[in-house]
Amino acid sequence: MTEQNLQCVLAERPVGWVEPRHFRFERGPIPTPGEGEVLVSNHWLSLDPYMRGRMSDAKSYAEPVALGEVMVGGTAGVVVASRDPQFQPGDPVVGMLGWQLYGVAPARALQKVDITHVPLSAYLGPVGMPGVTAWYGLKRICAPQAGETVVVTAAGAVGSVVGQLAKLRGCRVVGVAGGAEKCRYVVDALGFDACVDYKAGHLRDDLKAALPHGVDALFENVGGEIFDALLARTNAFARVALCGMIADYNATEPYGMKNIRAVLVNRLKLQGFIVSEHLQDWPAALCELGGLVAAGRLRWRESVAQGLESAPEAFIGMLKGRNLGKQLVKLV
Amino acid sequence: MTEQNLQCVLAERPVGWVEPRHFRFERGPIPTPGEGEVLVSNHWLSLDPYMRGRMSDAKSYAEPVALGEVMVGGTAGVVVASRDPQFQPGDPVVGMLGWQLYGVAPARALQKVDITHVPLSAYLGPVGMPGVTAWYGLKRICAPQAGETVVVTAAGAVGSVVGQLAKLRGCRVVGVAGGAEKCRYVVDALGFDACVDYKAGHLRDDLKAALPHGVDALFENVGGEIFDALLARTNAFARVALCGMIADYNATEPYGMKNIRAVLVNRLKLQGFIVSEHLQDWPAALCELGGLVAAGRLRWRESVAQGLESAPEAFIGMLKGRNLGKQLVKLV
Repeated sequence: MTEQNLQCVLAERPVGWVEPRHFRFERGPIPTPGEGEVLVSNHWLSLDPYMRGRMSDAKSYAEPVALGEVMVGGTAGVVVASRDPQFQPGDPVVGMLGWQLYGVAPARALQKVDITHVPLSAYLGPVGMPGVTAWYGLKRICAPQAGETVVVTAAGAVGSVVGQLAKLRGCRVVGVAGGAEKCRYVVDALGFDACVDYKAGHLRDDLKAALPHGVDALFENVGGEIFDALLARTNAFARVALCGMIADYNATEPYGMKNIRAVLVNRLKLQGFIVSEHLQDWPAALCELGGLVAAGRLRWRESVAQGLESAPEAFIGMLKGRNLGKQLVKLV
Repeated sequence: MTEQNLQCVLAERPVGWVEPRHFRFERGPIPTPGEGEVLVSNHWLSLDPYMRGRMSDAKSYAEPVALGEVMVGGTAGVVVASRDPQFQPGDPVVGMLGWQLYGVAPARALQKVDITHVPLSAYLGPVGMPGVTAWYGLKRICAPQAGETVVVTAAGAVGSVVGQLAKLRGCRVVGVAGGAEKCRYVVDALGFDACVDYKAGHLRDDLKAALPHGVDALFENVGGEIFDALLARTNAFARVALCGMIADYNATEPYGMKNIRAVLVNRLKLQGFIVSEHLQDWPAALCELGGLVAAGRLRWRESVAQGLESAPEAFIGMLKGRNLGKQLVKLV
């Protein structure tokens, strides 16, 4: 290995929108695994909205990334060297090795995956954290019955799985996405019953038209005005899984929610969750999701940026909603 | 009976604050009970915030009162005549006979009460709908553990019971009330650990000082700015029972909630409820509350207006927070 490692570190904390100058690239030696550790060549880096929160030092559920530290991130790759008997060179693994070409982790922080029927990158999408996020919020919080109307905002890595799982349960599924192309994809490729384009300029009317029977369950990823408008369309006893509020992540002032009274009037249950706090559900979720992917019953799309150098721009694009489906960076 | 009935009917739907002109008084004959019905002389009328909602024809969980119809309301009184074998003249009963001196109801819509150890008016307060509201929201939604911090906004009929039940469970209890007198009452008479005066002009700082360990459970009656400020002080996995949003009931524009992101960041569970939809819990709740009142372990205070004619002003005063404890009208 004469190659070097390449890392992308946090250079500056953003206020408002993230910009390329908030990141810095550093070259250095490829690390050596210690006893019980494994060296992985990362093939895929996952880009996810939660990373925006880690760039900020505002109080949150997770520690921020320190300035100068490698950006946090889920990765899928192949073992290069191992000092743990459970891993051999060549093993495909997923972990949280961050925005870098090579990473070392303790064996317990890596998971060997089976790529016979499921491609490696899917372990960062429908059969990974985004998929389990969709599974948990839908099953454990939204808990929709057949025939109920489920709404999911955004058609990204999480939302696309939410909607398909809800369709498999016999629900009417309505998406909310930005732009005609995403909306077509959601309906034509993913099989949602309808999709409202929030960029079309008549959100309230379009939601009303797409939701003749109101909303029984809402899987909320976006927050802000869209969330507010959807609250006004909830039915009695609707459930809201609050998974993300991406609309607020880059705003300097949070949006003022006008329709919280719907929680009272419609006796809603509104619950925020972080999927990493529900590890007990991961095996069942991954088993179900992996089975659906292997059987071709769960579809997904990837937006792939080439090379670690493209990660900052791809991340910024995702925050602005430019990606269609799961945003990945192909590192090798 | 040469007496006449006196009724207070809805004359006009308010926009914003309620005013006396929205009501009208009408005299008429005392009604006669039909087969299976009971005639009751109402001694006490309960005034409650939910009545504001019934005066409006905006979509809500209950039908509005029709124009010209007797205002809806809980009542406690004594049977005058009965055409049902379960009720005898002289029986003390509670029901929903509305803003009038006499009312007729089917026997199944009345409940005989025991006034040996519990005064009749208490069945409209701590041992009635407000008490069960407190009981349900605290036990079924807030579900606090001993040592946790419970916050309840408002020190009225519901809030005073919430705080005392939470104290009995070993919680630290902080009230939020309007004015120094109410705050003193809440701490000195009801035994709360602290009470923040939201009228004192430094709400955020006072909440911070009164909540050194944050909020684990919130019983929310007020909404608006107070609710928003409390969301910012919630701990991870806090529960919020959303029982009322009285701050919004008379506003023409709802308050824009800035801190909904706390639901996500702190993984809150926020649930709205209407106590009348949980009838299965009423017997257990009333049994516990009646026992506590009879044993002198649950305290409450009443603001009593004299005569049905004073009901509109008393109701308006309650919406403005002028009452201390349960607002009643003494009819006889």
